[in-house]
Amino acid sequence: RINGDRLWESLMEMAKIGPGVAGGNNRQTLTDADKEGRALFARWCDEAGLTLGVDQMGTMFARREGEDPSLDPVYVGSHLDTQPTGGKYDGVLGVLGGLELVRTLNDLGIKTRRPIVVTNWTNEEGTRFAPAMLASGVFAGMHEQDWAYDRTDAEGKRFGDELERIGWKGEEAVGARKIHAMFELHIEQGPILEAEGKDIGVVTHGQGLWWLEVTLTGKDAHTGSTPMTMRVNAGLGMARVTEAVHRIAMAHQPDAVGAVGQANVYPNSRNVIPGKAVFTIDIRSPDLGKLTSMRSEIEAEAARIAEELGLGVKIEPVGHFDPVTFDPGCVSAVRQAAERLGYSHRDIVSGAGHDACWINRVAPTAMIMCPCVDGLSHNEAEEISKEWATAGADVLFHAVVETAGI
Amino acid sequence: RINGDRLWESLMEMAKIGPGVAGGNNRQTLTDADKEGRALFARWCDEAGLTLGVDQMGTMFARREGEDPSLDPVYVGSHLDTQPTGGKYDGVLGVLGGLELVRTLNDLGIKTRRPIVVTNWTNEEGTRFAPAMLASGVFAGMHEQDWAYDRTDAEGKRFGDELERIGWKGEEAVGARKIHAMFELHIEQGPILEAEGKDIGVVTHGQGLWWLEVTLTGKDAHTGSTPMTMRVNAGLGMARVTEAVHRIAMAHQPDAVGAVGQANVYPNSRNVIPGKAVFTIDIRSPDLGKLTSMRSEIEAEAARIAEELGLGVKIEPVGHFDPVTFDPGCVSAVRQAAERLGYSHRDIVSGAGHDACWINRVAPTAMIMCPCVDGLSHNEAEEISKEWATAGADVLFHAVVETAGI
Ligand SMILES: NC(=O)NCCC(=O)O
Ligand SMILES: NC(=O)NCCC(=O)O
Repeated sequence: RINGDRLWESLMEMAKIGPGVAGGNNRQTLTDADKEGRALFARWCDEAGLTLGVDQMGTMFARREGEDPSLDPVYVGSHLDTQPTGGKYDGVLGVLGGLELVRTLNDLGIKTRRPIVVTNWTNEEGTRFAPAMLASGVFAGMHEQDWAYDRTDAEGKRFGDELERIGWKGEEAVGARKIHAMFELHIEQGPILEAEGKDIGVVTHGQGLWWLEVTLTGKDAHTGSTPMTMRVNAGLGMARVTEAVHRIAMAHQPDAVGAVGQANVYPNSRNVIPGKAVFTIDIRSPDLGKLTSMRSEIEAEAARIAEELGLGVKIEPVGHFDPVTFDPGCVSAVRQAAERLGYSHRDIVSGAGHDACWINRVAPTAMIMCPCVDGLSHNEAEEISKEWATAGADVLFHAVVETAGI
Repeated sequence: RINGDRLWESLMEMAKIGPGVAGGNNRQTLTDADKEGRALFARWCDEAGLTLGVDQMGTMFARREGEDPSLDPVYVGSHLDTQPTGGKYDGVLGVLGGLELVRTLNDLGIKTRRPIVVTNWTNEEGTRFAPAMLASGVFAGMHEQDWAYDRTDAEGKRFGDELERIGWKGEEAVGARKIHAMFELHIEQGPILEAEGKDIGVVTHGQGLWWLEVTLTGKDAHTGSTPMTMRVNAGLGMARVTEAVHRIAMAHQPDAVGAVGQANVYPNSRNVIPGKAVFTIDIRSPDLGKLTSMRSEIEAEAARIAEELGLGVKIEPVGHFDPVTFDPGCVSAVRQAAERLGYSHRDIVSGAGHDACWINRVAPTAMIMCPCVDGLSHNEAEEISKEWATAGADVLFHAVVETAGI
């Protein structure tokens, strides 16, 4: 069994970097806080005797040698970046759970047959630079590396420039590594496990997603002196599309979600009818048919709303992945580990996207989930118990050691 | 008659300060650009032989002496501050039209009986610091000066501090001046005069206004893994209230307008259900009964929407004025001047708020409007013709000289 106290201490230590405003974290990708978090993780890896590799997307790979170094390693890990108002566990648990696994092997003096690599994937969150899971996406050949470098944040800063700025642009070619299998431990970010009192979610599938960025173009005009009939109000258009996204997601229940996360009007002045609105739509379903039809219904509705208000409309996809089926062999390794350790468990579908979803396209992959309080995530109040974290890391440990061989 | 070419040149010269991004201006109040605009106006006043006074709200009063300096002066003017994406004429025409009037009197060697004071009121727009017409409001005793100093912009900067920073906090007590009458020339900011081919709008009334700032509080949560039924979506609430404001304004047609100008969600991340939304509502009517009932209908609707979505709701009034009836004597001086000069004219209600609306509470006041292209204002593409500007300034000249006496 892993050392739950040590894991928890490391989680709390990492949470000191990039503190949020309400007890959580703001350690967005490629910020100074991210740089500091990476340095701490690198130091811990060094102390645990791991060898660090960094690829050209800034992903950190900390390797513990196996008895047979020629065998493809087993990968574990997740991400250290957070939302602007994020929690202390989303992503971090998977990386530090991997580190704890290695520390435990060190304690026990066990050398696995295959090497084990603990990974911190760059820009999983996608909040600063869309899309999410950017580095694992390039690794899996889903995006061109140069295209990834050209992604910009809200201030127009390029991903590639920011990666260089914080000093974590490595030499290693992205995707060159061979992966025998990958296991990602993550908090559920939803309410199911806690509600059912289960210790472990055995993740069998992941939802598919579309992110759409909508730009509506109207006409800046005076809120007082412009007659109602002469207005071309992009903010009103945004309101109507926001309602439509909600309505369409509700019409596809169950197994469908939809919301507008980013919403901006211009010039954003009290006495100016917004001449422009830019906002993002996030729709997801584990069912590809539903996902596809939600997208086309929303696009049709946005076009209709734009027409009725006289607005120009542009809809650009800025993130996408199809629903994922994880590798049956890895999934059953997780299920058996939970079984063996006596943890209650159930099969579950991941509501969020994860690096394991992209890596699943190039290597056998599975995920382990642990509950989180009230299903709350992407919120500074995100919370888990030490027991939940310990159980998750224990299952990770057993599934990985089983797969790496001893 | 005034010199239309000279007036136009000055307008174009002022427009070079604080250029916008699309041919208009961004010379928001108490910015460095505002400081520069004030310096240019002060230089022009000096060259025209005027004596500058500055009050503790930063309002600039440039006095041309009358034959009888003991008589209360006639005031003209408006404001030099602009919207973030504002036009070259909104406010500026009234200030520089006043300057042109004085320059013309200088050319003609005419000394009026009463002094004439050309005024640049601070923070008319209210976009950086709510409410609008802040300095004229303090002048008219509608707000406490200390309260005005405490207004903050989006970055939390105080009005009082910014006024000191740009070096335009004067010594003079606000509201100490006696005003015989005040005339404000302004572009219509609406479509009526152009549509009817009239040169001049004789402004008899002004609409009343409420600005309401609404804060909806929900719960940040993951867009992917949070079931639809567990969401407390403040962005969806903002969308519904935005629609309600539009619907309620439409139900009160004619003589009512309503829109949401500022709209912000937090944390404004693609994959976070907004846990907070802050936005402003602008409703207006020349009919006090309509204005009052629109406000209460909107507040009731916002409360109902908040309840239906489980949101917290706070509604704070951040700007208000009742409908205004301008002084009959001043209004008829404007109408007669237009008549005498042979300009086509019609009576009109101001859709926007103006400094003259507040000053009307402490002195006889009227306004002169000239058309603007497509009724467009609070837009960088705001446009007027030199002929329209000339006609407006001509009417201003005659109404003022008539009132000041020769
Ligand atoms: N796990 C997680 O929150 N990932 C961010 C990408 C997503 O929005 O699903
Ligand atoms: N004239 C003008 O646009 N004033 C700003 C205050 C208002 O919104 O009416």
